[in-house]
Amino acid sequence: MKIVKTIEEIRQEIRQARQHSHSIGFVPTMGALHAGHRSLIEAARKQCSFVAVSIYVNPTQFGPAEDFSRYPRNVTADAIVCEKAGADVIFAPDDSVLYPTEQRVWVVVEKLTDNLCGRFRPGHFRGVATVCVKFFNIIGPDQAFFGQKDAQQVVVIRRMVTDLNLPLQIVTCPTLREPDGLAMSSRNQYLSPEQRKQAVLLSAALRECKRVFSQGQHNVSALIAAMRMILSQGPILHPEYVQIVDMDSLEDIDTVDRPALAAMAVRCGQTRLIDNCLLGLQNGLDSL
Amino acid sequence: MKIVKTIEEIRQEIRQARQHSHSIGFVPTMGALHAGHRSLIEAARKQCSFVAVSIYVNPTQFGPAEDFSRYPRNVTADAIVCEKAGADVIFAPDDSVLYPTEQRVWVVVEKLTDNLCGRFRPGHFRGVATVCVKFFNIIGPDQAFFGQKDAQQVVVIRRMVTDLNLPLQIVTCPTLREPDGLAMSSRNQYLSPEQRKQAVLLSAALRECKRVFSQGQHNVSALIAAMRMILSQGPILHPEYVQIVDMDSLEDIDTVDRPALAAMAVRCGQTRLIDNCLLGLQNGLDSL
Repeated sequence: MKIVKTIEEIRQEIRQARQHSHSIGFVPTMGALHAGHRSLIEAARKQCSFVAVSIYVNPTQFGPAEDFSRYPRNVTADAIVCEKAGADVIFAPDDSVLYPTEQRVWVVVEKLTDNLCGRFRPGHFRGVATVCVKFFNIIGPDQAFFGQKDAQQVVVIRRMVTDLNLPLQIVTCPTLREPDGLAMSSRNQYLSPEQRKQAVLLSAALRECKRVFSQGQHNVSALIAAMRMILSQGPILHPEYVQIVDMDSLEDIDTVDRPALAAMAVRCGQTRLIDNCLLGLQNGLDSL
Repeated sequence: MKIVKTIEEIRQEIRQARQHSHSIGFVPTMGALHAGHRSLIEAARKQCSFVAVSIYVNPTQFGPAEDFSRYPRNVTADAIVCEKAGADVIFAPDDSVLYPTEQRVWVVVEKLTDNLCGRFRPGHFRGVATVCVKFFNIIGPDQAFFGQKDAQQVVVIRRMVTDLNLPLQIVTCPTLREPDGLAMSSRNQYLSPEQRKQAVLLSAALRECKRVFSQGQHNVSALIAAMRMILSQGPILHPEYVQIVDMDSLEDIDTVDRPALAAMAVRCGQTRLIDNCLLGLQNGLDSL
């Protein structure tokens, strides 16, 4: 497995793979890889004959007060994960490679970015969409793999692919969880032991939401109240939002009378955790 | 030469061409083709072994008060021009093909779209950039051909290709002109005989600018005054802007101490005409 840092090198790797008639799978990551990422790479490995993984902490998707500078970086450990999971090449560019001059061109996704995380992270999805288009244009994959953990990101990227006629397919893979239910995230390593203990309440709240929903409670206020009740058991948890939205438009709904997404962002000390589950759909993506 | 209307068909044509190891040249147009377009197709024909032309009056680049509905449309005549100029395929989609649902994803180009036409056509370049990305993603050309007549468009599209890492090359071709100097434009056919007569003053003003500049006058105010003096000879001409800007940033300058673009938009009755020339560069793109 090669690790390359320039656009010329990764394009050369892809060109050679294409010459051997490989299909190209692509897994974009910010590094600090965990079992969730590994499952994305393994899914790409199953679907495609050549797998590229990018490792890049994209500055344009972080707000000024966010954790860009302290975001965990460890390309050496990440390379071992990639290799074991079956990646063929890692693309790990520096900022000067992806943003050699001031970025003037942005991909903006309207409406779908107004709610949920978009409300609290202005500019975040503009940065995500833009860097994904850059990667897609550099690598030219047949399929790109994203985790359901970042549910709004998946909706945004899927819409971007449709609306910009990008010639690739987006594959969504299930959220992976720790044995106690905590959704895997690179940010979990920020947590102190006490924070880690309380962090389990996010998935517990979503499970409670599913339970109450399955008993016939389709009123969104009631479902949100049930989730907030569980979260309130963690005194250091501060919910940023707890919402139930239409799964396609990501707009608020009053009643779960269609496929819906229950999603939350919760501050746990300095760390912002997110999790979500689907209501009214049996696709296993939330693994709850 | 084939004319196709769906994304599947054009992608199929391109796929076949790629299988025959063709290089792909792409000329995006809004139809109503004239000798300027023909020269773009001929340039593509020289550089590439397979040439695709799109004919599509893109609604998202027109403002509500602009000429979208009366923009000339004549695909039958256009097809003859394309065939004669050596195109291999025309892609002429309907709106429902390019915008099957409400467009939520836009490519926005900052700063470069604030000045010149961008000041007077809010949203225009967002529409242009977005539809070009769509076409580039649908067709996947090696080279795309644009006319210098739309100078700001060329700067915007070039920056977009750079900033989004689009895997293609932009080729700029010289403005083509009528014998009296009027830059060719599909909108010239809107002009009454009297308007047509006065329209020649745009290119005359630019020629005067070049003449005065070549005599050592590098002060922008003086050069603009020289151009406005010529334009004032046409009583029905109403300049929207007459500007000289940095050729790369498109920002206003006081002195032509670097390569610069002299550009104007002039209303001539209901018709909005644009023209431009380069100062401090000998590349023949403005053909003045």
